[in-house]
Amino acid sequence: MPCLLRGTASYGEGMEDDSVVIEQFRAAVDRRLAELSPDHDARPARLAEAARYAVLSPGKRFRPMLTLLAAREFGAEPLMALDAACAFEMVHAASLILDDLPSMDDADLRRGRPTTHQAFDEATAILAAVGLLNQAFGVIAGDPGLPDAARADLLRRLSASVGFQGLVSGQALDLHDRDHVRTPDDIDLLNHRKTGILMVAAAQAGALVAGAPAGAVTAVGEFARRLGLAFQIQDDLIDAAFIADSGKDLGKDAGMMTLVTALGPQEAAAAVGAHLEAAGAALARAGATGLLARYAFGLFEARKAAA
Amino acid sequence: MPCLLRGTASYGEGMEDDSVVIEQFRAAVDRRLAELSPDHDARPARLAEAARYAVLSPGKRFRPMLTLLAAREFGAEPLMALDAACAFEMVHAASLILDDLPSMDDADLRRGRPTTHQAFDEATAILAAVGLLNQAFGVIAGDPGLPDAARADLLRRLSASVGFQGLVSGQALDLHDRDHVRTPDDIDLLNHRKTGILMVAAAQAGALVAGAPAGAVTAVGEFARRLGLAFQIQDDLIDAAFIADSGKDLGKDAGMMTLVTALGPQEAAAAVGAHLEAAGAALARAGATGLLARYAFGLFEARKAAA
Repeated sequence: MPCLLRGTASYGEGMEDDSVVIEQFRAAVDRRLAELSPDHDARPARLAEAARYAVLSPGKRFRPMLTLLAAREFGAEPLMALDAACAFEMVHAASLILDDLPSMDDADLRRGRPTTHQAFDEATAILAAVGLLNQAFGVIAGDPGLPDAARADLLRRLSASVGFQGLVSGQALDLHDRDHVRTPDDIDLLNHRKTGILMVAAAQAGALVAGAPAGAVTAVGEFARRLGLAFQIQDDLIDAAFIADSGKDLGKDAGMMTLVTALGPQEAAAAVGAHLEAAGAALARAGATGLLARYAFGLFEARKAAA
Repeated sequence: MPCLLRGTASYGEGMEDDSVVIEQFRAAVDRRLAELSPDHDARPARLAEAARYAVLSPGKRFRPMLTLLAAREFGAEPLMALDAACAFEMVHAASLILDDLPSMDDADLRRGRPTTHQAFDEATAILAAVGLLNQAFGVIAGDPGLPDAARADLLRRLSASVGFQGLVSGQALDLHDRDHVRTPDDIDLLNHRKTGILMVAAAQAGALVAGAPAGAVTAVGEFARRLGLAFQIQDDLIDAAFIADSGKDLGKDAGMMTLVTALGPQEAAAAVGAHLEAAGAALARAGATGLLARYAFGLFEARKAAA
């Protein structure tokens, strides 16, 4: 039995085979995203190019990978979940366009490239974001491979993860409600709504496409939620260490309440460990101890090593 | 048999009963929109208030009325389509917020009230628009009264009407591609994508909820498309007459190519007549000659009289 299919492989085993599968999945996402993006000859060309620029920008496609790997974990042919996976990347790209706008974080660069409103213009960036979010729903609604019940469930969860109690509220809290974000629970809620909530929906989408039982869908969501929180605290720890080392002010983020400033670096590091442990336990409850876990925890280790 | 149920009533008949039904439908839409809007105590409150401000602002609820009346026309209990109807008002409200933004039309007032970004702030306005669009999909995805097949079809059509070949592209064409809008066909396409396309989806949604045959769904769409074009040309005729009368410049719209500037007022007025005739013929093909037609054409006459 090849290692990839062994649910009990430890995270270090089978890394070579793992990386082949991961790379295949990522390439499939990139190809499908390019197919789904507005054509170069669409009118107006500027809008189409802005949408392509944002959604096809280089990235690890983390949310689509969660969808595909969760689908695989529960026995589905992963490519059945490919369009749903791409939908989550569209939403993610839309959220980054919006976060970077002059009226929000006012960012000129993202990963070394001009942000979408800098590369095009603000109105085009906003319309591209709205178009990408809208297309995410259209892609799932129009995916011929999805059973109708899974489709409706997926769309409901996608909408809940974006809306007035999801990404949109997370961004609004971050912009205008930081004074009310004081306790560790407040900080976790903000972090979850700003990023983790879409990871939860993406991972659960894969489980839903595979027809996983409700308990497993919930557990996979808990895995993604814990993972998202661990990532965020890790980022905050890295920023804090960098600030301490360099004496530099990293900008407006430096003054914000994070779990590191609230609890101190030691307790924050312990929280990362607790979240990762809970994430692993949730996957174990769901019987999903294969490549999904190895990918997610491997990514975590790689980020830590790179910092 | 009461007049309302008579498919063959001419548009002038039964006006009193009509207005009672219309008023009931509109009130039902307003109540349901208020229920579906984010609570006053949602966090952050500013975002919730901005969304409520935009979507509950006074209006005739034209798109929801098209949905409800089309559902009624094809034999459905109209309230079965109420949530879908409200979804179209959410999308409409979102599109108005975006159109008014500083980076787009930069409008301070809409119908005498401060625009959403003026009443709140730009970031909150953008997030409210994104939240409302997102919620429209969530409401339809989560509507327990819809059959699954109709739900998926409705969501696909909603997405198509908003996206890179819908409202979003219409707004982008209007902002950045006016130089390429020269022929009457170009102008019709722009007008359709800027407004009519959502009316088409709204009217068709009602027919879909009622399980109308595909030919009838198409015909109802053609009715709404023609009606939308007629409305737009009528607006342009009114603006042109006002400009001619007053010698005033009505702002940036005045310099733009419209069907009135392209064809002259007489031919433009003839086009309005042709669109209305085609709209009526489409409804007749669909066997939908009841209140939907009386409402739409009545509204048209009322606008003309008020101008």
